[in-house]
Amino acid sequence: MTDLPDKEHAFLDWFNEVLERANVSDKRYPVKGLNVWTPFGFKALSLMDRLIREKVEPLGYQETAFPTLIPDTEFQKEGKHIKGFEEEVYWVTLGGKTPLDVRLALRPTSETAIYPMFSLWVRSHKDLPLRVYQICNVFRYETKTTRPILRVREIHFFEGHTVQLGEAEAEAQVQADLGSFLAIADALCLPYIKNKRPEWDKFAGAFYSVACDLPIGGNRTLQIGTVHHYKDNFAKAFNICYEDKDGEQKFGHQTTYGISERLLGAVIAMHGDDHGLVWPSIIAPVQVVIIPIARESDARSVNDFAQDVQRKLMAEGLRVALDASDERPGAKYYAWEMKGVPLRIEIGPREIKDNKLSAVNRLGERSKIPGEDLMAGVAEALEAFDASLRKRADSAFQERITIAREEDELKDDVVSLVGWCGSEECGKKAEKGGDRSIIGTVMGELPIDAKGMARPSCIFCGNDSSAWAVVSRPL
Amino acid sequence: MTDLPDKEHAFLDWFNEVLERANVSDKRYPVKGLNVWTPFGFKALSLMDRLIREKVEPLGYQETAFPTLIPDTEFQKEGKHIKGFEEEVYWVTLGGKTPLDVRLALRPTSETAIYPMFSLWVRSHKDLPLRVYQICNVFRYETKTTRPILRVREIHFFEGHTVQLGEAEAEAQVQADLGSFLAIADALCLPYIKNKRPEWDKFAGAFYSVACDLPIGGNRTLQIGTVHHYKDNFAKAFNICYEDKDGEQKFGHQTTYGISERLLGAVIAMHGDDHGLVWPSIIAPVQVVIIPIARESDARSVNDFAQDVQRKLMAEGLRVALDASDERPGAKYYAWEMKGVPLRIEIGPREIKDNKLSAVNRLGERSKIPGEDLMAGVAEALEAFDASLRKRADSAFQERITIAREEDELKDDVVSLVGWCGSEECGKKAEKGGDRSIIGTVMGELPIDAKGMARPSCIFCGNDSSAWAVVSRPL
Repeated sequence: MTDLPDKEHAFLDWFNEVLERANVSDKRYPVKGLNVWTPFGFKALSLMDRLIREKVEPLGYQETAFPTLIPDTEFQKEGKHIKGFEEEVYWVTLGGKTPLDVRLALRPTSETAIYPMFSLWVRSHKDLPLRVYQICNVFRYETKTTRPILRVREIHFFEGHTVQLGEAEAEAQVQADLGSFLAIADALCLPYIKNKRPEWDKFAGAFYSVACDLPIGGNRTLQIGTVHHYKDNFAKAFNICYEDKDGEQKFGHQTTYGISERLLGAVIAMHGDDHGLVWPSIIAPVQVVIIPIARESDARSVNDFAQDVQRKLMAEGLRVALDASDERPGAKYYAWEMKGVPLRIEIGPREIKDNKLSAVNRLGERSKIPGEDLMAGVAEALEAFDASLRKRADSAFQERITIAREEDELKDDVVSLVGWCGSEECGKKAEKGGDRSIIGTVMGELPIDAKGMARPSCIFCGNDSSAWAVVSRPL
Repeated sequence: MTDLPDKEHAFLDWFNEVLERANVSDKRYPVKGLNVWTPFGFKALSLMDRLIREKVEPLGYQETAFPTLIPDTEFQKEGKHIKGFEEEVYWVTLGGKTPLDVRLALRPTSETAIYPMFSLWVRSHKDLPLRVYQICNVFRYETKTTRPILRVREIHFFEGHTVQLGEAEAEAQVQADLGSFLAIADALCLPYIKNKRPEWDKFAGAFYSVACDLPIGGNRTLQIGTVHHYKDNFAKAFNICYEDKDGEQKFGHQTTYGISERLLGAVIAMHGDDHGLVWPSIIAPVQVVIIPIARESDARSVNDFAQDVQRKLMAEGLRVALDASDERPGAKYYAWEMKGVPLRIEIGPREIKDNKLSAVNRLGERSKIPGEDLMAGVAEALEAFDASLRKRADSAFQERITIAREEDELKDDVVSLVGWCGSEECGKKAEKGGDRSIIGTVMGELPIDAKGMARPSCIFCGNDSSAWAVVSRPL
């Protein structure tokens, strides 16, 4: 097998090739931008969904399912929203051979499907906060080049929607959502920059948008999660109002929270390497692979032992493969590394005799696991692996971000933090360098150590800056 | 609150009303036939999906996700299939403002989305059997009156697809699928009739179709699961072929397996009663509700105790609600019965003193649960509840089926088993009595005790019969 393309210099080639070799997704479906999730890829995706559910349900979100099809009449209700999406909506115009009276949009996002119902569900302040989510597919008629997982036309999507008493409560929900996203990203060993999107790039219909962006090499960033504050923009369009304690009718304030399959793409992009995928253990479709290593004379006893180890670990809920095929061990190592399995356990006569298993994690770190304490040993090895993976990702993250003090210092090989006065005029100057732009202003702490440096003045006009802005090329 | 409509004589009214009062699904979405799953309804649906996964994965099925949109060019490939669906396909014709070169079908079922990929995935006999499934939404532009869950335009759907070496292997797969369906239905306490569909009513493109039908009162039946044998009909249309051991190129033989949200509708229809829903415990969104019963003086200690019971049961994985609201106990009983909770536990000072909890199941059966053996006691009570529910359903099932020996004996208040010569001409005679028809011929044992009776001759022509046929009015 030839080497994978160089990830650093040919990221998209590497990405496509690793998806194909590890068999995550098949892009040969006969419509561009619509891909097929293989059993292996779907397993990772389902595990990511499970992680998301575990982190959002404690916030009070309840799972629901709303229709995929939105009548044009509802879709038109929020003016900015429709404007933001009109170029990329798929329209259903025929049922059988009959033209539909009202054409139906395939949801590009579900505000306009959900809010007519919210308008019926919300009556009193006692009904609030209302928090629902769905994990569904949304559809966007992308006109840009499509890329498996990173930019597709049918998108696997988590979307949370809430209605709150007022602006402050909505603000608190935004913070709670961002807190849960931090926990999700941490479980996936992913660092990111938390940005407030500039006015001209906020979600269509939002009051403001917060996005989590991951530098993935060069000056490229990938948006991996978003939280929006809508104020009462949609509530007014959809008449979502409630009777307050004092009997007054008020509009609800709303927030949304979105995570798409891109987060899985980000995991692949951030952690993958020259040998293939690297899954953090929480979403690894296979967490442990056992490779029996034996001559023909002791193959039977070694295989029996290996099967026993597999059975024990699976009984504890781990996802474990046993590769007892006839391939040489080296070929097996290669194949399972490509598939990104966090931990490989090698079992031969020596390991059985000593009752100590040899483990090698996907980053090449070796350990011994005592046979009498199998599960604890494996759990510890997986935890150590995740810690190393997180460290490696953090270090790459730090290297991919720098501070630029002059326009000339904006480079193609790194994401830049700059002083910015906040004006759109200056903001747009960032775009002179091709498809790079100000993707937002940093919220909270700077993602890299600025060594106590005061915020420099606006890189474009020299006036006082109002925030640190992030200049990158969004993928 | 007024009574529910009479289930026996006004089934559809009862069904709509119980969905609304128990808050399972909201039919007020602004497009007819597209409904919203509330958190409560979605929970039951998810639990049903989990049950299906648990029963089909041991057969070797792996979960995947294929695109929702199917290009017309693929959709047209199997002639009978397109003919069967052309009247009920939603077509996407516009992307943004651009007419699409090739219009896209919203999948009404996924054969034509999946088989172009199978054609790429299957190369050698070593790739077979191939078994995948997806749980997704399918779309049908129903022209008949829509009904929540029972006949909708966006359908929550499990579909399994396999490719086999030959006809015999496909036949074995059909049997395996039917075996797993029996286990699913049994877990849901549902009896059914297993029918081979008549030639004129088999799945569009199939060699033969097997359907599981549930009598739900009167002479109505509900199709709750289907398994189809396709032979190589689709394989030829989609070029799904493999190299056999001897080097010969052969077409695969295929099967499919489908279960829709109607199965959840069947659970509601079969088990629900005058007091509302009745969930079998495996899919009950709430399995146990705890009602503290106390005067104000001991409210605190009773509530603490009740919370402790809830905590302990939830730690064991049970779904438990505690209703500590200010409502009267009677109002609480009413509300939780409407929601179909299998087991109610009442806790007052007496129960605490004796360390014995009082339990009443949804069928009104009382038991005592020892406090020192809480989990085992509750598990036993739930098991006993399921057994009673199964018994009640079996008995209603038996009463809803009879044997008709003459055409005159075909009645509107019962499903009939009849002798049938097998000819379409005679088969169509069953339809003279309105919208009733021969829905199939009984496979395996008769669903009711025929007391050793020999199969009578054809009810329509008097010639020898070739099978027992089922005459009913499919909903």
